[in-house]
Amino acid sequence: MAFTFQINSDITFKHDEFLLTKAEKYRPKINKKSVYPKKIVDICEDNSKLDGYYIKDSIKDIGKIKEYGMSRDDTMILDLGNHYVGKFSIDIDCVGSPMDAPLYIRLKFAEMPSELKFDSKDYNGWLSKSWIQEEFIHIDSLPAKLELPRRYSCRYIEIKIIDTSPKWKAVFSNPIFISETSADYSKLKTIDIKDKELKDIYDVSVKTLADCMQDVFEDGPKRDRRLWLGDLRLQALANYSTFNNLELVKRCLYLFAAMPTEQGKIPANVFVSPKNIPDDTFLFEYSLFFISTLYDYQKNNFDKDLLDELYPVAKTQMDLTLQMVDEEGKLLTDDSYPVFVDWSNDFDKTTAGQAELIYTLKQFIYLAKQINDIDIYKYEDILNKLVYYSKSNLYDKDKKLFVSGVEKEYNIASQVWMVLADIMSKDENKEIMHQMINNLFPVKGIATPYMYHCIVEAMFEAGLKDEAVTLIKDYWGSMIKLGADTFWEAFEPANPDYSPYGSPIVNSYCHAWSCTPAYLIDKYL
Amino acid sequence: MAFTFQINSDITFKHDEFLLTKAEKYRPKINKKSVYPKKIVDICEDNSKLDGYYIKDSIKDIGKIKEYGMSRDDTMILDLGNHYVGKFSIDIDCVGSPMDAPLYIRLKFAEMPSELKFDSKDYNGWLSKSWIQEEFIHIDSLPAKLELPRRYSCRYIEIKIIDTSPKWKAVFSNPIFISETSADYSKLKTIDIKDKELKDIYDVSVKTLADCMQDVFEDGPKRDRRLWLGDLRLQALANYSTFNNLELVKRCLYLFAAMPTEQGKIPANVFVSPKNIPDDTFLFEYSLFFISTLYDYQKNNFDKDLLDELYPVAKTQMDLTLQMVDEEGKLLTDDSYPVFVDWSNDFDKTTAGQAELIYTLKQFIYLAKQINDIDIYKYEDILNKLVYYSKSNLYDKDKKLFVSGVEKEYNIASQVWMVLADIMSKDENKEIMHQMINNLFPVKGIATPYMYHCIVEAMFEAGLKDEAVTLIKDYWGSMIKLGADTFWEAFEPANPDYSPYGSPIVNSYCHAWSCTPAYLIDKYL
Repeated sequence: MAFTFQINSDITFKHDEFLLTKAEKYRPKINKKSVYPKKIVDICEDNSKLDGYYIKDSIKDIGKIKEYGMSRDDTMILDLGNHYVGKFSIDIDCVGSPMDAPLYIRLKFAEMPSELKFDSKDYNGWLSKSWIQEEFIHIDSLPAKLELPRRYSCRYIEIKIIDTSPKWKAVFSNPIFISETSADYSKLKTIDIKDKELKDIYDVSVKTLADCMQDVFEDGPKRDRRLWLGDLRLQALANYSTFNNLELVKRCLYLFAAMPTEQGKIPANVFVSPKNIPDDTFLFEYSLFFISTLYDYQKNNFDKDLLDELYPVAKTQMDLTLQMVDEEGKLLTDDSYPVFVDWSNDFDKTTAGQAELIYTLKQFIYLAKQINDIDIYKYEDILNKLVYYSKSNLYDKDKKLFVSGVEKEYNIASQVWMVLADIMSKDENKEIMHQMINNLFPVKGIATPYMYHCIVEAMFEAGLKDEAVTLIKDYWGSMIKLGADTFWEAFEPANPDYSPYGSPIVNSYCHAWSCTPAYLIDKYL
Repeated sequence: MAFTFQINSDITFKHDEFLLTKAEKYRPKINKKSVYPKKIVDICEDNSKLDGYYIKDSIKDIGKIKEYGMSRDDTMILDLGNHYVGKFSIDIDCVGSPMDAPLYIRLKFAEMPSELKFDSKDYNGWLSKSWIQEEFIHIDSLPAKLELPRRYSCRYIEIKIIDTSPKWKAVFSNPIFISETSADYSKLKTIDIKDKELKDIYDVSVKTLADCMQDVFEDGPKRDRRLWLGDLRLQALANYSTFNNLELVKRCLYLFAAMPTEQGKIPANVFVSPKNIPDDTFLFEYSLFFISTLYDYQKNNFDKDLLDELYPVAKTQMDLTLQMVDEEGKLLTDDSYPVFVDWSNDFDKTTAGQAELIYTLKQFIYLAKQINDIDIYKYEDILNKLVYYSKSNLYDKDKKLFVSGVEKEYNIASQVWMVLADIMSKDENKEIMHQMINNLFPVKGIATPYMYHCIVEAMFEAGLKDEAVTLIKDYWGSMIKLGADTFWEAFEPANPDYSPYGSPIVNSYCHAWSCTPAYLIDKYL
C-alpha cells in the first residue's frame, strides 16, 4: 500500500450545534463486563503460524498465579480466551525481604501472539509508535492495585518484570479485564448456519463488529479508534444483520453531517475525543458514502425525521461531486480528493470511481424521491449521462470487461464497482464477473477485507453465489486458520505475514471493515 | 566495592508502638517550592568532563518554549539551575492537524548530565534497574496537564518525543518542578567563610543535606531513599551545624529504637513507606552508631526525656556487641554481622572495627553517666581491656601505625578509627596520622565520601588541620570542579567516572554521607 497523510490546515469546518446535539442524544451506553484470564500461556516458534509464533498452555496454573514470584526479566502471559476491548487491572504484592527498590514492569497488550515477540525498539514505520500497546510502569510501594487508565484491544497480556531487587520478588493476583462495547448481545439476531466454516466466519465477524462498537463505530479499537465513513457504511450493514443498533448509526450520521467544511464537504473521518473534531482528510467516495449509509439506513428502517434532517447534507455531497463530471458524463478525478477504492495505488481507479458515483447517485435519487425533491430530474439526467458514458467508453464488448484509465487497464476494482453500480443487464454482469475470475484472478496486490468485501458482494449480486462463498471461505476463513479471534485490517492470503506498517505490533487485528461476512451471509445465503 | 545483599528472612522484629508514636509525632513538615526551569540546554561531548559530557545553553529560549513544536525523536532538556528533589508537571498541547494518535514521550530526570546519555537498556548492573529515573508516558488526549505522581531527584529534565504522528506536533509549556525538603532555610545558621573554595564546598554540603532531608534523613533522594544509621549519624552532625532540625533527628532515633530484632539488635536501615518496616540488613557499627547518634544529640542539645527513653536501646546494642569481645579485649568479628567501615572489601577491617567499638563504648559510658547506670563500672572495665589489647597487640611501635588482621596489614582505616577512638596520646595520634600520610597516601581503593569524612575528621582530631583542609579541597572540591551541585555517593579522584554500579544512571549524585564538610568546617575551622 502507499498511504499518504493529508494535511489541509487551511480548511475551516462548520460545527452545526443542532446536529451535534442529536449526535449526543444517541450516544450509546458502554456495556462493561469483567473478563478473567482463562490461563497462563507461553509463546512458541513455528514457521507455519502467523509471523512464526503460536501460543501454548504454560505449565503455570492461572489458579495459582499468586504463587509465582517474579524477578528481573521474568515474564508471564495471560490469555483472556478471546479478543476484548477494555481496561486492565491487577493486584501486585512483594514477597521476601522488604521492598528496597521500586517495582518496574512492562505490560504488553496483544491481539495476536506475534505482537508479543516484536520489540517496539525495532519498529520505525510511518504509523505512529504511540499505537504500540505497551506500558512501562514504576510502582514505588507494594501492595498495590494497578489500574491502567487507558483502553486496550487484546487477547494476550504479557507482564514482564524489568526489575525488582535481589531481595524480593513481585507476585500478581486478581487480574481483571473490564471489556467495553456498545453492542448489546441480548439483541443479537439468531441465525442458523449449517456450514461449520461459514458459521465460524459469521461468529468472528460478529465479534469483530462488537469490539468496534464503542462510543461510535470505530474503525479499529487497537489503533486509529475513530469514525471513518467508509468503515461506517460496512459496519452499519453488518449491524442491521446482527445487533441492529439503529441509534449508533444515527449518532454517526449526525456527527458527519454536523461537521462538513464551510463548503459543505464531509471529511473522511471524525474524532469524538476529547471533543468532536472533523479530520482534515478527504476521500472522494467516503464523502459520497454518507449518501449510501443514509440510504441503507432508510432501506432497513425508514425514518422520515432523520431523512428530512440529513437529506440536505447528502444532497450537498452529490452536488459537490457532480461538479467533477464533464459534459459527456465522465468523472474527472482530482488527486487532492483521491478516489480510495482500496489502499493499493497499483491500479487505475478512474472507472471504479465513475462506478462508485453511479452507485451512490442511484441511492441518492431514491432518497430524493422519498423527499419529493423537485430537482430530481436533474440527477436522473446526469445519471443517464454517467451510465451512457460508462457503457460507451469504458466497456470492452469483446473482452466483456471494463477498462480504466488512459492505459486501458483491466482491473478487478473496475469490474466489481461497475457490477455494484448495476448498469448492465443481469446476464452481462454475470459474464463480467466470470471474465474477471478467468482473467484477473487470483486477486493480487489487494490486502484489505474492505476491497474483498466489494468483490464478494459484486459476485453475489451477479449471481455467482458459489464463487462468492468460496472467496469468503478462502479469505476470511484463512484468517481464522491463522488464529484470528477477530478479522484484520489487512490480510493478503499469498503473504499472511504482510503488514502495511512493516511490523505486526501496529497492525489492527480487529478492524471494522472486515466484519461484513455477517452481512453477506445474512443477505445472500 | 563488593556489596552483598543480606537476606535474613528468619528474623522477626519488634514494633514498639509507643516509640513509633513518638517517631510519628516528630514527622516533619515537607516544605514545597515551585522551581521554574532556568533554561533549555544541550548536552555535548568533552572528554575532560565527568563521563565525557557537559551541558551548554541551547539556542532555544525557555521563554519561548511553547513555540517549539516537537515530533518523533525530538528532545528538549530543561535545566532547573540547581539540584532539587520533588515532583514535575508540564502542560502539553498539539499543533497542526487533529491529534490522530496518542502522544508517546519519554522523560528522564538526571542529577548529572551524563545520565542523559546512557541508555537504560544498556544497564545490567546488580542494583535494581527500577531506580533509573525514566518514565514512558502515553497521552491519549491533548491538551493535558501532565502531573507525574512520583518524586525525582534531578537538575535536568529531558523530554523526548517517541512519537506524535506526521500530522501534528506536541508543544510544551508551563514546566514546574515542586521541590520538597524538610530543611527550613530560614533556620540555616550563617557562617562566614573567607576561603572561596571552602565556601563553595560548604554551600554544596548544605544543599546535599537539605535535599536528603525529607520525611526522614534519607541516604539518597534519587535512589535508596531510606534511613540508614551510618548516614544518619553524619547527617545529624551536619544538621547541628546548619539547619539544626532536632525533631527530625529524634524522629529517626525513635524509628530505629522502635524496630529492633526480637533480640534487640537494631538493623542497619529502616523504611518508612508504605509503613514503618525495618530492613533485614545488619552492620556491626551501624547498630553501634545508634549510641553515637544519641550521644551527639545529647552533646548538642541535652534532652533527658529522650535519653531516658532511648538509653535502654543503646545499652542493648552495646551489650550485644560486647558478647563479641574475648577475655583479652579483642573484638571477634563475625561475617554475618559485617564490620562496614567502607564499601571496599579490599582491606582488613578488624582493627578498624575494634576502634569503632572503643569509640562508641566511650560515648556509651558518657550516656551511662548521665543516666547513673549502676552497671557503669563493667563498661569501664571492658573499655580498659579493649584499649589495652589494642595498644599491646595492634600497635606497631616502630612504624607508629596500627596493624590489622592476621596478615598484619597496615591500612588507612585502622589508623583513622584508632585516632578517632582516641586511645593514644595527642602526640602519638599526630604521629600516626603523619605516618599514614607518608606511608599510605594517596588514598587508594576508597571511593566513598563516608570514609573520606573519617579520614579528614581523624586528621583534624590529631591536629593536622592544614592536611585535613587540603584533603577536603582535593576530594569534595574535585566533585565541584566536575560539576557537582550536591555531593555524591561515590567518588574516586583518580577515576572520576567510577560508578559502583557500572553506569552513572543509577549513581546517587546527592548522597547524605557526603554532606559532612558543613560539619567539619563548622567544628574545626
